[in-house]
Amino acid sequence: MSKLNIGIVGATGYTGVELLRLLAQHPHAQVQIITSRGEAGVHIADYFPSLRGVYDLRFQDPEHADLSQCDVVFFATPHGVAMRDAPALLEKGVKVVDLSADFRLQDVPTWEKWYGMPFTAQAALKQAVYGISELNRAQIQQAQLVANAGCYPTCVSLPLIPLLKNKVLQDGMPIISDCKSGVSGAGRKAAVGTLLCEAGDNFKAYGVAGHRHLPEIRQTIALFDEKLAEKFIFVPHLTPMIRGMHATTYVHVQDNINPHDLIADFYSGSPFVDVMPIGSTPETRSVRGANICRIAAQRAPEYTDNVWILMSVQDNLVKGAAGQAVQNMNLMCGLPETAGLSQVALLP
Amino acid sequence: MSKLNIGIVGATGYTGVELLRLLAQHPHAQVQIITSRGEAGVHIADYFPSLRGVYDLRFQDPEHADLSQCDVVFFATPHGVAMRDAPALLEKGVKVVDLSADFRLQDVPTWEKWYGMPFTAQAALKQAVYGISELNRAQIQQAQLVANAGCYPTCVSLPLIPLLKNKVLQDGMPIISDCKSGVSGAGRKAAVGTLLCEAGDNFKAYGVAGHRHLPEIRQTIALFDEKLAEKFIFVPHLTPMIRGMHATTYVHVQDNINPHDLIADFYSGSPFVDVMPIGSTPETRSVRGANICRIAAQRAPEYTDNVWILMSVQDNLVKGAAGQAVQNMNLMCGLPETAGLSQVALLP
Amino acid sequence: MSKLNIGIVGATGYTGVELLRLLAQHPHAQVQIITSRGEAGVHIADYFPSLRGVYDLRFQDPEHADLSQCDVVFFATPHGVAMRDAPALLEKGVKVVDLSADFRLQDVPTWEKWYGMPFTAQAALKQAVYGISELNRAQIQQAQLVANAGCYPTCVSLPLIPLLKNKVLQDGMPIISDCKSGVSGAGRKAAVGTLLCEAGDNFKAYGVAGHRHLPEIRQTIALFDEKLAEKFIFVPHLTPMIRGMHATTYVHVQDNINPHDLIADFYSGSPFVDVMPIGSTPETRSVRGANICRIAAQRAPEYTDNVWILMSVQDNLVKGAAGQAVQNMNLMCGLPETAGLSQVALLP
Amino acid sequence: MSKLNIGIVGATGYTGVELLRLLAQHPHAQVQIITSRGEAGVHIADYFPSLRGVYDLRFQDPEHADLSQCDVVFFATPHGVAMRDAPALLEKGVKVVDLSADFRLQDVPTWEKWYGMPFTAQAALKQAVYGISELNRAQIQQAQLVANAGCYPTCVSLPLIPLLKNKVLQDGMPIISDCKSGVSGAGRKAAVGTLLCEAGDNFKAYGVAGHRHLPEIRQTIALFDEKLAEKFIFVPHLTPMIRGMHATTYVHVQDNINPHDLIADFYSGSPFVDVMPIGSTPETRSVRGANICRIAAQRAPEYTDNVWILMSVQDNLVKGAAGQAVQNMNLMCGLPETAGLSQVALLP
Repeated sequence: MSKLNIGIVGATGYTGVELLRLLAQHPHAQVQIITSRGEAGVHIADYFPSLRGVYDLRFQDPEHADLSQCDVVFFATPHGVAMRDAPALLEKGVKVVDLSADFRLQDVPTWEKWYGMPFTAQAALKQAVYGISELNRAQIQQAQLVANAGCYPTCVSLPLIPLLKNKVLQDGMPIISDCKSGVSGAGRKAAVGTLLCEAGDNFKAYGVAGHRHLPEIRQTIALFDEKLAEKFIFVPHLTPMIRGMHATTYVHVQDNINPHDLIADFYSGSPFVDVMPIGSTPETRSVRGANICRIAAQRAPEYTDNVWILMSVQDNLVKGAAGQAVQNMNLMCGLPETAGLSQVALLP
Repeated sequence: MSKLNIGIVGATGYTGVELLRLLAQHPHAQVQIITSRGEAGVHIADYFPSLRGVYDLRFQDPEHADLSQCDVVFFATPHGVAMRDAPALLEKGVKVVDLSADFRLQDVPTWEKWYGMPFTAQAALKQAVYGISELNRAQIQQAQLVANAGCYPTCVSLPLIPLLKNKVLQDGMPIISDCKSGVSGAGRKAAVGTLLCEAGDNFKAYGVAGHRHLPEIRQTIALFDEKLAEKFIFVPHLTPMIRGMHATTYVHVQDNINPHDLIADFYSGSPFVDVMPIGSTPETRSVRGANICRIAAQRAPEYTDNVWILMSVQDNLVKGAAGQAVQNMNLMCGLPETAGLSQVALLP
Repeated sequence: MSKLNIGIVGATGYTGVELLRLLAQHPHAQVQIITSRGEAGVHIADYFPSLRGVYDLRFQDPEHADLSQCDVVFFATPHGVAMRDAPALLEKGVKVVDLSADFRLQDVPTWEKWYGMPFTAQAALKQAVYGISELNRAQIQQAQLVANAGCYPTCVSLPLIPLLKNKVLQDGMPIISDCKSGVSGAGRKAAVGTLLCEAGDNFKAYGVAGHRHLPEIRQTIALFDEKLAEKFIFVPHLTPMIRGMHATTYVHVQDNINPHDLIADFYSGSPFVDVMPIGSTPETRSVRGANICRIAAQRAPEYTDNVWILMSVQDNLVKGAAGQAVQNMNLMCGLPETAGLSQVALLP
Repeated sequence: MSKLNIGIVGATGYTGVELLRLLAQHPHAQVQIITSRGEAGVHIADYFPSLRGVYDLRFQDPEHADLSQCDVVFFATPHGVAMRDAPALLEKGVKVVDLSADFRLQDVPTWEKWYGMPFTAQAALKQAVYGISELNRAQIQQAQLVANAGCYPTCVSLPLIPLLKNKVLQDGMPIISDCKSGVSGAGRKAAVGTLLCEAGDNFKAYGVAGHRHLPEIRQTIALFDEKLAEKFIFVPHLTPMIRGMHATTYVHVQDNINPHDLIADFYSGSPFVDVMPIGSTPETRSVRGANICRIAAQRAPEYTDNVWILMSVQDNLVKGAAGQAVQNMNLMCGLPETAGLSQVALLP
């Protein structure tokens, strides 16, 4: 079986290097083209020393790279780029996994409000499938364009989806997701706020007045219950570590319902969602480098109402970004869902 | 003015060394006795190299140390010790600040349930004043025994107290406090779970099935509203940093009420509570080493009900422990509340 | 081809879990037995959550585990255990890779001096091959017992070996190796000194008055030059990170010799030693999780004599321990040297 | 006694905020003017939240700030600024402490070679005193302009000075200083290399081909022995922590000389240099936030020649920058050397 020919647009960031790490070990895919405007001509091994001896590739100028020869192109770019460049690739039959936010929101005015620019790829948007693999597995298998889900939306939605699908959440009560992310979620750009001396040994909330992942998560909730979507509250925090994301989500469940079992049942056939036994607490390091979302659920103690605490962890760069992108590629291309994704978490 | 003669029982832990750091610069207090069963005879400078040149003291065996000569004794011990040893000191007129949990809960069965041992100091408990300085300033000024509040209870209660006092929270709705602590909260004992290689670059919840600070915080809420106390949900998390605590507390507020202003008004005369302008997010490092609880409040965005997000940060070893203990000592001894507590936070 | 049947003695530490991570992806080996006295009966997934879904194994009591059925047994134990238990396995034809120090020093009195206990396995010692794979590749291929090299000795020796072999170091001048290790080198045992709050945000030397890896490195140098071995100075330091080791080694080289080229030539056929171009500086993270020792060399600037600075990095748990152990197993068993060791470093 | 009127030029960096922290508690000094081109008009509390409630100052545009009214002005700026602006202040009688490198090297061609720009303040240079307080205490007391020493030069020079002064180092043998710095040494500027995700959990050398502090340290050695200055080798490393610096310096000492005692004697009257007992190893955290250089010395074990390992630690932002600057100000202004510098190190 010949290998898929892969291109990566914008391979200088953390999701880019993570795609390269994962695809290096993929049995059915081979990266052929990587692009970067700023680093055109530079050898990947000079840019990312972790890839010395792994790839013999140089960054190409995106203006001149012939991405149409690829079977699959990943966009690991800021928003706005895939919207501009993906449609031409789609026309030529290339499959596209967009790791940016361009095709995540189906409602154009909402997208334009949160991303602050005009949306210009309506035709492509119509065919885009939202890329939480476990939510849309069947559609992704048929898709030519997948909008890889955001890191927070993946981590928050996975434990919620089985409860929403089973309609066991109480009407009118809040769904509160208090989320914590490692600093790599902010990307690999020069900025004061993510310096080691600023973000290290420090904890803070951010985006409290409104974060772009709020409408994305609400869109997923609304697939099941539009009213509950409006009851969703989301506060992200920055935690002083490189990788890892932890969502703590507080839900009001109908009487006599045990959400743990519903979640465990729902994901019994999903290789990358691991539901722990009752009484467990997941740790972010248990999934460091691995394409896994690990979930535990616990009823709020000493509390009269049936409130549950859903804890979900993932590596924000893997199941929250590049890993799920490869998982989606596998689905799109008819490969085994787990191909190239058997990395064991790095602990300690 | 002669200096207060200070004793510290159990000075080998993190709250002990922090008391020593703060009291070294106190204009009206001098540490005369430090005790430790395991380290009796050892010079403090050999134990804590940060104190070389600062103190010329050796640990004394608690059996032989004459703590009754002290004006004030701090217990920086595991629970059970102050309960056993403080009553004799109180009888001799010594003032006691207990940094352990022994005298924090006024309901003995509740204490015994959560701490798993019989409570044996009922007489002392009757005179104990709960030591959140800003909550009980007047009573602390008259107290001989102060039960220094826990770290989480201080951080969570401070933003809640003004709202409870003003009775502006909605009945029947949950108060959810999602808390994050640096690892020093777990103390300075040999344990696998708090090794750098276990707790570093990792984030997790703990005590989800029930944490001892839950009844302590509920006791404070119940001072104002017993029903709301039962609606309090608390989940602590461990974050990979040494010092610092962040509470994110979600409250349902009555219509047309702005909790930010109530909190700011309430603490206008409190030197160690800093309420930030609307739109701010406090950072734990902004109080590293300083006796400050810094608070911000933000209305939940895109939400129909009047839900507010209260963010409060403190150094868990200072305002969350040793700093508040000194603050309480100042109040008990008629000293200026700020004496010895003007350390500026260490940033970066 | 059937898979090798693997046993791991003492699989509860960091080298144990790292062996399990690496062997999970090994195409020709399968772990069948893991032992632990303290955790007998516990499922590996309950002990190391990173291994949930990867292995279905329980720790066995070492007294009852039938390790003689294994093809290869790894000892990931404190010193003293392999010395006691390996000889019986060797007699039954089992191949043994000892990750402890028991068989590293060929001189028994030296071993007894540094390890403080009697040495009792002289017969086994005679057949032990010292396990720096690149130093003793041919002998390891014939060996039944390999004494896997220490972490510092591997990192320090690899850049030195080509210079020693080529006899280009100046007589009588010191070889100074200033080494820095991540905290995982201290193992996974409850201890105050390696708590996050003690070892975090802190840097210090340790073992300055004498570290057990000093005689081990000198033994390797003495293979080439006994006098130079006595000129070797070694100071290890603890750096606040989980994994990673950096050796900075200062050597006096004979005039007109370029040690960079000698090192690069020597390792041209070694898949796990990467020599960077002149002017580079290796980073520990570039090998995080990968079985690579990455080396750079730089002439001391503005200096009259031909002094060179050799910089070498490795993941102390991989090329410094479990990865090299698997590499040695591959050599011992006639497998491709790289089998199961193609993990790409995790960056960031 | 009226307080000294202080100005700080370039107060937005880490040495700036550290000066502000230290001077807030200084009994004889008051900061009146802070300048920043980029942040003119911004309140210091909005820029550094750690200073909320500590200062009521706004950044002034350096073009319009009247620094000539100050008694002392600190330059916490990149090189080139003090060279341009200090001379006018000196003419008006203002005392200047320059924390940048402008006046550190007395040899102008050397300065121009290493700093890559023309040097234009020869007159001021003639009166500049090099500001290692313990080296030049008497001259600093008379100085109007002090060139505050670099962080590495302070940490490396302090243990060497007594040995150089006593002429006990062997001729012709190298002095090798292997240094490790926390990331704050790189300053508070947006840069990829010092992001938490790049510098965290990572260790590397840098500046191996030549670092600007090499000629600065050699200049100090040459005060005592010009030939030995040429034998000095210096390699700095970046260690994943915020504050702290550790120098490990290897020296060849003449027979029968014990450098530990020479160092201890030399600093017996120096309040900010602490020499530990033989057998100790200093930790960077033992001086976190404190104006102390802590030193230990150990003879190289198992070595025939009299080689000693000098270990010195400091907080790079305090004794390595702002603290020493205040110490120098105290000396220049006839204040007690320790005024305002009694902060106890923050441990943990």
